[in-house]
Amino acid sequence: MSISKKKMILDLDTGIDDALALAYALADPDCDLIGIIGSYGNVYVEQGVQNSLDLLALLGANDVPVYSGAQHASYTDSFSVLPVSAQIHGKNGVANIKLSKAKRTPEKTSGVDFLIDAAHKYKDQLLFVPTGPLTNLAAAIEKDPTIIDLIGHVTLMGGALTVPGNVSPVAEANIHQDPEAANEVFSSRLPLTMVGLDVTTRTLLTRHETKHWRKLGTKAATVYADLVDYYIDAYKTTNPHLHGCALHDPLAVGVAIDPSLVEKIALNLKVEVKDIYEGRTIGDETRLNNPTVTTDVAVNVDKDRFLDKFMNRLTPLFAAH
Amino acid sequence: MSISKKKMILDLDTGIDDALALAYALADPDCDLIGIIGSYGNVYVEQGVQNSLDLLALLGANDVPVYSGAQHASYTDSFSVLPVSAQIHGKNGVANIKLSKAKRTPEKTSGVDFLIDAAHKYKDQLLFVPTGPLTNLAAAIEKDPTIIDLIGHVTLMGGALTVPGNVSPVAEANIHQDPEAANEVFSSRLPLTMVGLDVTTRTLLTRHETKHWRKLGTKAATVYADLVDYYIDAYKTTNPHLHGCALHDPLAVGVAIDPSLVEKIALNLKVEVKDIYEGRTIGDETRLNNPTVTTDVAVNVDKDRFLDKFMNRLTPLFAAH
Repeated sequence: MSISKKKMILDLDTGIDDALALAYALADPDCDLIGIIGSYGNVYVEQGVQNSLDLLALLGANDVPVYSGAQHASYTDSFSVLPVSAQIHGKNGVANIKLSKAKRTPEKTSGVDFLIDAAHKYKDQLLFVPTGPLTNLAAAIEKDPTIIDLIGHVTLMGGALTVPGNVSPVAEANIHQDPEAANEVFSSRLPLTMVGLDVTTRTLLTRHETKHWRKLGTKAATVYADLVDYYIDAYKTTNPHLHGCALHDPLAVGVAIDPSLVEKIALNLKVEVKDIYEGRTIGDETRLNNPTVTTDVAVNVDKDRFLDKFMNRLTPLFAAH
Repeated sequence: MSISKKKMILDLDTGIDDALALAYALADPDCDLIGIIGSYGNVYVEQGVQNSLDLLALLGANDVPVYSGAQHASYTDSFSVLPVSAQIHGKNGVANIKLSKAKRTPEKTSGVDFLIDAAHKYKDQLLFVPTGPLTNLAAAIEKDPTIIDLIGHVTLMGGALTVPGNVSPVAEANIHQDPEAANEVFSSRLPLTMVGLDVTTRTLLTRHETKHWRKLGTKAATVYADLVDYYIDAYKTTNPHLHGCALHDPLAVGVAIDPSLVEKIALNLKVEVKDIYEGRTIGDETRLNNPTVTTDVAVNVDKDRFLDKFMNRLTPLFAAH
């Protein structure tokens, strides 16, 4: 009898680090990537969905379905890409590179319905990894609250607890896109791990790694080296103190599969939804002494072990395509 | 050969929880309280010094010297007690109770010089526990930077990393009194443990404990029961969600003596010194990937074990006086 692998759904706003997360999830032998939901954030949802389709084609994974998610935050009726997102990821989310267009289109089912169906089908085998706003997850919970007790685990990239934010001194971009959705998710009983700036700004990629990919000479390796070099250049401007680019989204995938990569603290969180503190992730003082804590916050990371895993997965995948 | 006990210096702005910290340090068999420095904060420095002298007399400890510290923050030339401090601790810092006046006066040596001398004398045996602003510690470092490498450990009550502040959504009162001094302390190489609201609002005292003291019938037990009942009533107004009063300052003493009481994360901190974020304690993003981390932040506490220790120390002390 073989032990069945965990099933992973990614919820991506496919910019550059999302592209790395997608590759990590595809390459990891310990999980099956069963679908991608597209979100707004680094890019508009249509662009993000197209990027996911094109990257999956590049990596020989045309069997992974891609679904469209919400186009904007739950409490607004529109969305605009922030100038800083376009600066970091390129206007098209993929470093302004023209990727070969996938031969297929997104699924007809909505991302929210796909997530709900998968929760009922796979139950505690399902890992959900959102690396953008939490709009789709909040919408799924609202539509079918029973999934709270079904989904195995949610490992999200977003938030900042012990370090400053990146869109304000207190707020991280993904949470800031839809603080109300994030607050609903954090105050649900969903088993969550928050992989925020606390740890993602400790896992850095440099030109050393992209040079290694470039030598492989394949199409996938070249595209990914181009993507990451663009991202590294952007980080030189936006985060000069880091001396590299942060592996935000792939770290969430890595931690979802192997939680031992990070040191965690258990803490019930809330998200501030208004004024200057909008989007701040912080301990909920009214639930501080609750006996039940459903959220873990990653506060430190074994960066060397993660970077080894990251390269050991992505390099062979790129070499093969 | 007997192992010499650790030597503790308290730096108190003697309000009610400072009075509990003083009693804890006196009663603990594993440390010698070698002196108290008076600070401004909950009260004016003269009042705090007098409160410390009077409480030491009440507890039969007239041999512990009391020194005067700074009267105001390092970057200002005056200080006023906040209305909320007077509300929580009483106008005189000790619940408006008229304590029997000590027969002695504070030492002539300044608190800063006492700390510097003690650092040279006791070196790594010295535990420094500030439970108010960090003005005196910053002044001592500035006057004699060699003490950074001499003092055994600093365990401070102050700050809030993973929960909201108590004087603003981001700032805790002690740090907010003198953010510049706090930032100097956090960016020094001093070995520090921050015992902030993250943990102190998890250790609560209720009327159950004060009733127990009241039954002892001694003068000390009655005074301390009166102090804490006043404090519990104030907390009902200021922090109704807690259902008790927070043992801020005594927890710092407890952790200084027995660090295993708390779960800690290692993180280099900074303090915001201006505008709306003034007094915020947060990870220093520019030192996040430094190989050397000199600050531990307490993020969870074994509250039952601490409360047991607290009562096992204070109750016999009160019973004897």
